[in-house]
Amino acid sequence: MTPALGYASTSAISRLAPLNFERRDPKATDVAIEILFCGVCHSDLHTVRDEWGGCVYPCIPGHEIVGRVTKVGADVTKFKVGDLAAVGCMVDSCHDCPACKEDLEQFCQNGATFTYNSPDKHTHGVTYGGYSDSIVVDESFTLRVPENLDLAATAPLLCAGITTYSPIKRWGIKPGDKVGVVGLGGLGHMALKFAHAFGAKVVLFTTSPGKTEDAKRLGADEVIISKNIDEMNAHAGTFDFIIDAVSAEHDINIYLNLLKRDGTLTLVGAPEKPLPVSSFGLIFGRKILTGSLIGGIAETQEMLDFCSEHNIVSDIELIDIQDVNEAYERLLKSDVKYRFVIDMKSLKK
Amino acid sequence: MTPALGYASTSAISRLAPLNFERRDPKATDVAIEILFCGVCHSDLHTVRDEWGGCVYPCIPGHEIVGRVTKVGADVTKFKVGDLAAVGCMVDSCHDCPACKEDLEQFCQNGATFTYNSPDKHTHGVTYGGYSDSIVVDESFTLRVPENLDLAATAPLLCAGITTYSPIKRWGIKPGDKVGVVGLGGLGHMALKFAHAFGAKVVLFTTSPGKTEDAKRLGADEVIISKNIDEMNAHAGTFDFIIDAVSAEHDINIYLNLLKRDGTLTLVGAPEKPLPVSSFGLIFGRKILTGSLIGGIAETQEMLDFCSEHNIVSDIELIDIQDVNEAYERLLKSDVKYRFVIDMKSLKK
Repeated sequence: MTPALGYASTSAISRLAPLNFERRDPKATDVAIEILFCGVCHSDLHTVRDEWGGCVYPCIPGHEIVGRVTKVGADVTKFKVGDLAAVGCMVDSCHDCPACKEDLEQFCQNGATFTYNSPDKHTHGVTYGGYSDSIVVDESFTLRVPENLDLAATAPLLCAGITTYSPIKRWGIKPGDKVGVVGLGGLGHMALKFAHAFGAKVVLFTTSPGKTEDAKRLGADEVIISKNIDEMNAHAGTFDFIIDAVSAEHDINIYLNLLKRDGTLTLVGAPEKPLPVSSFGLIFGRKILTGSLIGGIAETQEMLDFCSEHNIVSDIELIDIQDVNEAYERLLKSDVKYRFVIDMKSLKK
Repeated sequence: MTPALGYASTSAISRLAPLNFERRDPKATDVAIEILFCGVCHSDLHTVRDEWGGCVYPCIPGHEIVGRVTKVGADVTKFKVGDLAAVGCMVDSCHDCPACKEDLEQFCQNGATFTYNSPDKHTHGVTYGGYSDSIVVDESFTLRVPENLDLAATAPLLCAGITTYSPIKRWGIKPGDKVGVVGLGGLGHMALKFAHAFGAKVVLFTTSPGKTEDAKRLGADEVIISKNIDEMNAHAGTFDFIIDAVSAEHDINIYLNLLKRDGTLTLVGAPEKPLPVSSFGLIFGRKILTGSLIGGIAETQEMLDFCSEHNIVSDIELIDIQDVNEAYERLLKSDVKYRFVIDMKSLKK
């Protein structure tokens, strides 16, 4: 084992604080990575505060990881020391079930190994995430990072990026389609960028008139204040696809109403309480309500390559790891444009 | 205009009673039909009692119509006097919008003309339905009836049949698929027959243990009592498709949980109140929740031809029209196996 340093939470009500721990020594197919940047995802906060239950402490969160390879196992073929590398929400899966064979490891029927707070096959403890100086991951779950992108701003692509790219790809968004994005936060701002890059006419729905200018800069052709019922009704039945990135309680029936016949609304935000859905709203027009969960490893690589080609990264605020607890408080108020990323060299301070 | 006799409701609290009214004389592309049988759909009851609002009185319901052609307009090519003919939920549409051009007249953007209580282009009143001795319909909305099927039991195919056939067809159900049907009533019993005929392994979900034997006779390979949580959990993640025909309030999350990754649950029953839907239930496994509304005219004909080939009709209780008010009371208690059909010769009594 190799000594490592991270930021961990030790209980649901603890602040994140430094923790010395260990990473496994790289096995034959492993890649050891020095973490340079790690994004701050709302899931990190939910997990360390045990809001979803099942948190094992100490918990080191973080699954939007970019860094540089420091060591490779004997059988590693995709990476060499010095390469850029990234790790997203998963570090392993069974490799054998139908989901894994279809490159949908996030739905591994034997349970994917998530990057943190997941049973770790190697240590028999739990996995520790990216709020740390290093990580060791099988090369099959390690992503290649394009050289032309800002590295810090690339980190959030590993979760916020793939979470929004995957449904846009899956539902076949093409030039000229009318695509709605509900909510302008970490996920929403990436959805704007991707939908725009896929050639869609993109409309942002927000409750905040103040976000209009920013939304247009990020790729929206139009911004609709969702409280404006007349404006909403004027768009009834006109959307091919809507991606809903709001995790607060909200009325999704007003968005189902905006879909064309056979149109699709995909949830990527996950409100805690069940959403009331009008059955008439689905039946009249055969509307589709669905959800999407990150993406498989191959698709994550495809997304990174797409970002390289279209020069897409996240809009970020770079922070020191010592400021992560305050960042969490700001995150709770949606006070971030649009993703915090931890500059991991601050860990050495 | 030609005199006609029907059964009508004159207010939301009236019993249906005889009404003399008039049908238009057939125009060039019209078919005049002597109605022999008309099915009793729950929508009839909802409409005459004004439970959906907007009922214009007097209201003659009925949209599961089979009969015999008595007259044809000069330009009619598909029918001749003496032919069997059927009429379903629609009698006209704009013929011109994208939905109509895609043979999805039920989603006509200018508003399909439904068979009853719909603005009538010809009379400038409302349309009158099949609880009557005759009807006049444009041949493009008139269906050919296979000669080999029991005529009374064919009537419910025009609504209950197409409503369940259409989503099974649309979602590509194929031999070996595992298909669930929620609820054994007018729609559910047709869904069992169609899913079975498409070669699926069919499972009925019901709250009534007493329905097991009947369900198996109708095409179910297995019956699950939905209150039995252990039995439900044993099937988690195994269904390709579920068709939910229950219009009473019920928990659909337990059915979403039974779907495979990327599986689809289609609502054909329409509970009045919004259904609470777990966003996690959709996100984990990318489950699809959708709805379906009857079917277009071409697909209705395809369904009738499919029924002819597979010898599928509805299980019915034949009643005299004088008993229709009592039938409504029994319908409210789900006390019918599985569809009332009015023998229209009783109208002459």
